[in-house]
Amino acid sequence: MTTIDSTLLNHVAIVLMEPKFPENIGAAARVAWNMGISRLIVVGSIPPDRERMAMMATHKAAHLLENMEFHHNLETALAPFSRVVGATARRGRQRIPGKNPRDVVSEILPLLPDNEVAFLFGPEDRGLTNDDLKYCQMTSSILTADFSSLNLAQAVAIHCYELYHGVVHCRKDTAPSPGLATTFELEGMYHYLEETLSSIDFLQDKSYDYYMNNIRQFLGRMQLSSKDSSIIRRICRQFLRLQGQSVAKKE
Amino acid sequence: MTTIDSTLLNHVAIVLMEPKFPENIGAAARVAWNMGISRLIVVGSIPPDRERMAMMATHKAAHLLENMEFHHNLETALAPFSRVVGATARRGRQRIPGKNPRDVVSEILPLLPDNEVAFLFGPEDRGLTNDDLKYCQMTSSILTADFSSLNLAQAVAIHCYELYHGVVHCRKDTAPSPGLATTFELEGMYHYLEETLSSIDFLQDKSYDYYMNNIRQFLGRMQLSSKDSSIIRRICRQFLRLQGQSVAKKE
Repeated sequence: MTTIDSTLLNHVAIVLMEPKFPENIGAAARVAWNMGISRLIVVGSIPPDRERMAMMATHKAAHLLENMEFHHNLETALAPFSRVVGATARRGRQRIPGKNPRDVVSEILPLLPDNEVAFLFGPEDRGLTNDDLKYCQMTSSILTADFSSLNLAQAVAIHCYELYHGVVHCRKDTAPSPGLATTFELEGMYHYLEETLSSIDFLQDKSYDYYMNNIRQFLGRMQLSSKDSSIIRRICRQFLRLQGQSVAKKE
Repeated sequence: MTTIDSTLLNHVAIVLMEPKFPENIGAAARVAWNMGISRLIVVGSIPPDRERMAMMATHKAAHLLENMEFHHNLETALAPFSRVVGATARRGRQRIPGKNPRDVVSEILPLLPDNEVAFLFGPEDRGLTNDDLKYCQMTSSILTADFSSLNLAQAVAIHCYELYHGVVHCRKDTAPSPGLATTFELEGMYHYLEETLSSIDFLQDKSYDYYMNNIRQFLGRMQLSSKDSSIIRRICRQFLRLQGQSVAKKE
């Protein structure tokens, strides 16, 4: 028998963005539990119906629903995570090219000992929006025939399966990974960066999203540590302070 | 973009043994279609409710339900297939050791150009029985935490996903595989083998199933061709004929 370092999966959360059918949350909870993942987060306007969730979860996964976190806001939900993988079937021009779940998991596994990782899934009908995806450093696309979209719980199932399979078969001697900046730290950094780039008129109404999305993708790929993000934030703050002084001088 | 030899998946069927909930058939149809598999077979006592199936299938997978084969008997359902993979979570003493779906698929892929392959799934509550599994040359077990059992449609999803992933990434230069004996041919052979072994009192009430299961597993692993199975059948028939004569002589 393979011995499994199942504690690794304690660093993984399944995050469902505005799921429409509570049954799908239940089915996702069940398969997450099947695959050794016990952290489930739902983002929405009203808490989902408990009974309809429980119907699909089986009693063994009931504790996942009891301990389920519920947030009104995606940024708050993702705040503690230093790696966010967005599951997407669609490929827009603004999108980070999606890798397949197997490759995603092989990149994520070395991060698990030192980082909290979220797998983010969009609503059943429309998937994740570009606005949701701005929090993601990676996207994961399950290749399907005719680019058809999967049932939500089955997309969760395939990702959980790849994670569990990866943990079971991963080599113990992989190099430790750095502690990456969390969404909370990254969003703080982006906030200062936006303000700074706006202050020099680099970001203007028309191209605002275009540039910020590209900058997010670029910095997202860089695997910034907490320290890195803090340095960038401090540079921006310092720049803004000086600029404030120079504006004050001019006036 | 990868070009996909999707015709390979025309040789794959998903076979559901006595599913309890028509919704699960619908969900299985949807994910089979998502992964380029269009042959769906259900075995049961009464045809499943069309509306409840359709609810989970989405309209794009509706033709899978329309073309779905329905059989009362598993042996008849499996007759055309020369490789049957049984999906099982349980590990009994009588069971063929289950491989994981990824390894199963890598063994199945080279067979696809020349063989019809069935993936067989048991009912939601109890899975496949030993009696169902006797038609399987391989079993596939999705490893789960605490050996918990997956939702039927999710087990189908993971197998279909592995098949599609395998076909997309498989190398075109794999050696062609032989045409294997179908379930129809194998069952014909086993029938004669049973009769022959009974006639020499090798198979007796107490150990009957034990020996026949082991013989099935042993011959199952051998990847018998149509010709091989025909030869074994003819040897048995010839033996029985001679024995009939010698019995007649003695009388």
